Amino acid sequence: MLRRALLRGKGFPGWWSAAVFGGIGGLRSGGILGGGPDVITFTGAMRSRSRPDWQDLRMTSAAAPKKDPWDLPDVSGLTVGVLGGTGDQGRGLAYRLALAGQRVIIGSRAAERAHEAATEIGHGVEGAANAECAERSDVVVVAVPWDGHARTLGALRAELAGKLVVDCVNPLGFDKKGAYPIKPEEGSAAEQAAALLPESRVTAAFHHLSAVLLADPAIDEIETDVMVLGEVRADCEVVQALAGRIPGMRGVFAGRLRNAHQVESLVANLISVNRRYGAHAGIQLTDV
Amino acid sequence: MLRRALLRGKGFPGWWSAAVFGGIGGLRSGGILGGGPDVITFTGAMRSRSRPDWQDLRMTSAAAPKKDPWDLPDVSGLTVGVLGGTGDQGRGLAYRLALAGQRVIIGSRAAERAHEAATEIGHGVEGAANAECAERSDVVVVAVPWDGHARTLGALRAELAGKLVVDCVNPLGFDKKGAYPIKPEEGSAAEQAAALLPESRVTAAFHHLSAVLLADPAIDEIETDVMVLGEVRADCEVVQALAGRIPGMRGVFAGRLRNAHQVESLVANLISVNRRYGAHAGIQLTDV
Repeated sequence: MLRRALLRGKGFPGWWSAAVFGGIGGLRSGGILGGGPDVITFTGAMRSRSRPDWQDLRMTSAAAPKKDPWDLPDVSGLTVGVLGGTGDQGRGLAYRLALAGQRVIIGSRAAERAHEAATEIGHGVEGAANAECAERSDVVVVAVPWDGHARTLGALRAELAGKLVVDCVNPLGFDKKGAYPIKPEEGSAAEQAAALLPESRVTAAFHHLSAVLLADPAIDEIETDVMVLGEVRADCEVVQALAGRIPGMRGVFAGRLRNAHQVESLVANLISVNRRYGAHAGIQLTDV
Repeated sequence: MLRRALLRGKGFPGWWSAAVFGGIGGLRSGGILGGGPDVITFTGAMRSRSRPDWQDLRMTSAAAPKKDPWDLPDVSGLTVGVLGGTGDQGRGLAYRLALAGQRVIIGSRAAERAHEAATEIGHGVEGAANAECAERSDVVVVAVPWDGHARTLGALRAELAGKLVVDCVNPLGFDKKGAYPIKPEEGSAAEQAAALLPESRVTAAFHHLSAVLLADPAIDEIETDVMVLGEVRADCEVVQALAGRIPGMRGVFAGRLRNAHQVESLVANLISVNRRYGAHAGIQLTDV
């Protein structure tokens, strides 16, 4: 965790100075080994004359975080809406968040379907039409099919104004060779949401969870990391804290919305993993 | 691991039948909740009328793997060349593979630089000019800067003919907001390699390793998964086996080359993670 990393950082001033000196601003395009000043010092016999790779791009001292990144807000009092809450992913998330004690309202185009699904899920979950779900919620998770993503959000612009929106949609196509990413014109589903909802606080998260594992009442803990993306740190921290309410889960900040497409698209790779290994693959980040 | 997943699969015939019935071919574009037949049955109180999500897209029975996906070839006798072996990533990989007992030749534009770096790394690593490195190797890892990717590979087409090429280049750009993916015209660095090397067997792997951790002689094990992409299963299995030679590492098949861009691009997110948490983040796949 952070402490470990900091201790290591202190133990290896070479990397840290490389990081400080080689702050992002100083780098140019060029990929994994491209850009960056000639300052990294390898340990042991591994002296290197070459440039630091991306792993050495650390926060500059000037921009060093003023707070522990694991110090997250208390979100237990927030009401979470789940648009597409009658689908497998939305339903599974609603179930887990409600189990964790969160107040959850699932939304659907048809209020009746939402009510039925909410009754099935139990644990105090309520159902409502999408508009009411959005209006009554503090945080609104978007778990609708990619097909209906733009249409659904475009119609809820007013209800979602001022809300913290969490997009977890993965735009994918399928053919005989399996799954492949669809790149939305806006860059990603999350960026499409941000474009359609200028008055909302849009983040992206919960892309890599197995609806099957989420829904399985025999499973108490889901050991996985939730990559949380967004432009505003406070908003991302709320989503990270929400993810952390689910036993085994951890919310990890993983970049700005312009880096959402690859996070959404990675599901195509997880599908390949599932098919080869008969698994329900998820992601964990190491050394964090 | 696989056994766990298979047992669970047997325990939940609902998913399996959903998978078999909903084989990839039967799906249409539409993203995480889009496409797919209406067959998934949820466990417990979670009956669902909705469609299976991507986590339920399993190998169809007809296409079920005939072998244990963890049954990988013995690669201990193969010589591994590392183009860009004087850079941090290539150097770190060469060091770890040599430590594991692999015969390694690092390549550089200048033979002398390669010889110097090889001497510094030790453990029997040899150095050579890129062309000789390619010619003398069975497996050739491409760890050059993205800037020089096309130029380097284009010049080695003859030497790389028939070789197993492992591309681990991450095309990234950097600006004040951090890192962002660069999308090559061919779709990814790996697909560019495949286009430039029609007579080679091109795979992609080793994208998410920390050069810093690879190079640190105080670190014995690097607990991470190496996502291996490619078109030919036998070629991917050689790369998976190579990754598995490094203590703590596991090579996992993660899709075709057309799904390489998001794997390469995910490094932009790992950079954000590293900066926020002061880490050297890597990836592990859960439930696999």
